[in-house]
Amino acid sequence: MEGKELKSLTSLADAVDKLASVLKGLKLGVEEVELLEARGRVLARSIEAKIAHPPFDRSAVDGYAVRSSDTYSASLFNPVELRVVKEAQIKPGYASPVSTGEPLPEGADAVVMVEETTWRDGKILVYRPVAVGANVSRRGEDFSAGDVVLEAGSVLDFRKIPVLSAAGYSRVEVLGKLRIGVVSIGSEVVEPAWVSGDLPRGRILNSTSYVVLSYLGRYPFINTAYYGIAPDEYNIVEDIVLKALSVNDIVITTGGTGPGSSDLVYELVEKNGEWVFRGVAMRPGRPTSLSLIDGKPILHLSGFPLAAWTGLEGLFKPALTRALGLKGLETRVVYARLATRLPNQAGYTTFIRSRLKAVGGELVVEPFMLRGSGLLRSLSETDSYIRVEEGSEGFEEGEVIPVYLDYP
Amino acid sequence: MEGKELKSLTSLADAVDKLASVLKGLKLGVEEVELLEARGRVLARSIEAKIAHPPFDRSAVDGYAVRSSDTYSASLFNPVELRVVKEAQIKPGYASPVSTGEPLPEGADAVVMVEETTWRDGKILVYRPVAVGANVSRRGEDFSAGDVVLEAGSVLDFRKIPVLSAAGYSRVEVLGKLRIGVVSIGSEVVEPAWVSGDLPRGRILNSTSYVVLSYLGRYPFINTAYYGIAPDEYNIVEDIVLKALSVNDIVITTGGTGPGSSDLVYELVEKNGEWVFRGVAMRPGRPTSLSLIDGKPILHLSGFPLAAWTGLEGLFKPALTRALGLKGLETRVVYARLATRLPNQAGYTTFIRSRLKAVGGELVVEPFMLRGSGLLRSLSETDSYIRVEEGSEGFEEGEVIPVYLDYP
Repeated sequence: MEGKELKSLTSLADAVDKLASVLKGLKLGVEEVELLEARGRVLARSIEAKIAHPPFDRSAVDGYAVRSSDTYSASLFNPVELRVVKEAQIKPGYASPVSTGEPLPEGADAVVMVEETTWRDGKILVYRPVAVGANVSRRGEDFSAGDVVLEAGSVLDFRKIPVLSAAGYSRVEVLGKLRIGVVSIGSEVVEPAWVSGDLPRGRILNSTSYVVLSYLGRYPFINTAYYGIAPDEYNIVEDIVLKALSVNDIVITTGGTGPGSSDLVYELVEKNGEWVFRGVAMRPGRPTSLSLIDGKPILHLSGFPLAAWTGLEGLFKPALTRALGLKGLETRVVYARLATRLPNQAGYTTFIRSRLKAVGGELVVEPFMLRGSGLLRSLSETDSYIRVEEGSEGFEEGEVIPVYLDYP
Repeated sequence: MEGKELKSLTSLADAVDKLASVLKGLKLGVEEVELLEARGRVLARSIEAKIAHPPFDRSAVDGYAVRSSDTYSASLFNPVELRVVKEAQIKPGYASPVSTGEPLPEGADAVVMVEETTWRDGKILVYRPVAVGANVSRRGEDFSAGDVVLEAGSVLDFRKIPVLSAAGYSRVEVLGKLRIGVVSIGSEVVEPAWVSGDLPRGRILNSTSYVVLSYLGRYPFINTAYYGIAPDEYNIVEDIVLKALSVNDIVITTGGTGPGSSDLVYELVEKNGEWVFRGVAMRPGRPTSLSLIDGKPILHLSGFPLAAWTGLEGLFKPALTRALGLKGLETRVVYARLATRLPNQAGYTTFIRSRLKAVGGELVVEPFMLRGSGLLRSLSETDSYIRVEEGSEGFEEGEVIPVYLDYP
């Protein structure tokens, strides 16, 4: 019995370090995908532009391309008169109409905005000198051929994929998908599909697996496989976990770890592998553990939904971000005034779900204080969370504190 | 020629109103999906819990279930002694060990945390009275059977899907996918797959379609179909757009709208349909327009990447959110100190891409001031944006202003 108890908890920071080290050993390989399939994937190598962007000097406004030197004497009372001809080459004394994005005619080195001119008999009047390059997007202003435009590890989204196409890429090398098998453990847990009418006494509907699967489902670079609920029978748990492990890069288990449970996870690891850490000094999520079987990582999360979430958000995501060098998935931090005092429990990093509100031009954060890591409204009715770090004594009411944002 | 010019621009607020009205006419239908397939979909009807959650009174901590009345006389110097027996029913003078989440034995109405007891010869000493319900998650504390747990329009994510399963649902009714056809227009635009070596002079690589497709690709309730680049030939543009319209709920065109272009979009709408509005008082994104052909909406976006983005983020997303009653996709607003002065151009709502930094416990926002709506670094190197509203004169350096956040 003694061995099963969680005696010394690992600090969350150390747990992240250890999980990141293990995840650095993942061999995801590289695959080439079309840009249209690249959203949410992780760039395997840094990308050098094949082509400059913009590929030519072009107008940044609607107006007239001019030789800037023609406008140097212009003033409100002595406007310069330029003859307007649409030509690919501009001679002194001429201007050519250009719309936003159009290439600058040869000879032109600036654009006068249409609003700043007066039209008269095929000519424009210009009332102010324009500088060389005024209202022009220069060739290569975004990037030149050969520039590194995106770094390895970038998670490709609507901000980054257009850079790839403009840099001349129609296909791109991304990391192979990370395969994660998800196994729920516990005879007390039932799937909603199994139930009609009331739940048998002592049974609880599965919600934790759905936290894990829909949290990970946001990341197109992850492929989840769900193995359902293993009952509290050692042989079945072992079979399912080992099978999941054989065809995935990582297995995540939920449940089966509590001191009151039959501790099937403990037996599984003792028989087949080794512990990296057992128990993390965080609340909720204390039973969170990491083991290795045949060199592959198994992340053991609590069977309670909120505690499984801290295992993902507080531990797995930062460790994976570090291990794969992910760029662009960092959890957003904002600062907000705390509506109520939040004391900490010594020796733990505490996660408190919260709601942000804008009050008079600043953000106020309200902790969502329902007790119990099994409660779901603390997820569904909140949009953010507060971390009280292990060394901290907590926060006072009215203090401005960092708040971390969810995204859907 | 005259009819083609954008004469009176519609304010962004009016454009959102008009687009929302049109989108309210969408008939998306309803489909039933498994919870595992529900992520990112839109709840078609409000959901009433079939089963209470938690389904029974349970312990919120590891400890001992007790009758609270047994502890009323407890004090540090006169602790109460309770005999420990693991039983489904607790008699006066007894306590039963429970772990987090375990059902409370009958007779018990509170839990004493294990840390607050001393163990002695099959008994525990309790040093403080516990109140009725202490450390207990009550049956129905999250929700009771019959409670509305999620509202129609909720976008289902990792926070909400677990509520569905706990409420007894294994399948759920969601809106049918919104089908959007995306058509790029312009002979100057080339796909990166067509190019080897240098670009022919005056040609530009397609990046705007990829902004649109990867922006919309974040939403699992949207199905995009990409029709590629139509050259500047009226018959081809008409064929492609009408074909796209016949099999989609909405068509989005990019390009073909500039005053310097051959204005194919103008001709298309004049011949086949009607304008809802032409031109929006926003920058970038002035040419953004909305038309109806056979009663179906076509949203015409600028051919420039940043201006197409304002059409999506400033116009399409808020209008769609309102029309479908979407809950949970609202763009996040935070407050940050502005690093440099931002004057506005009278009569326009201006979008300025920006970067947020934490400086000494507050957020500072730096506008990303590259000129030109065709530039891509203003998307790829930023994480947020500033809106200067149409009536505003802009913001002063050092002012604390609202900033809107991207997510990947």
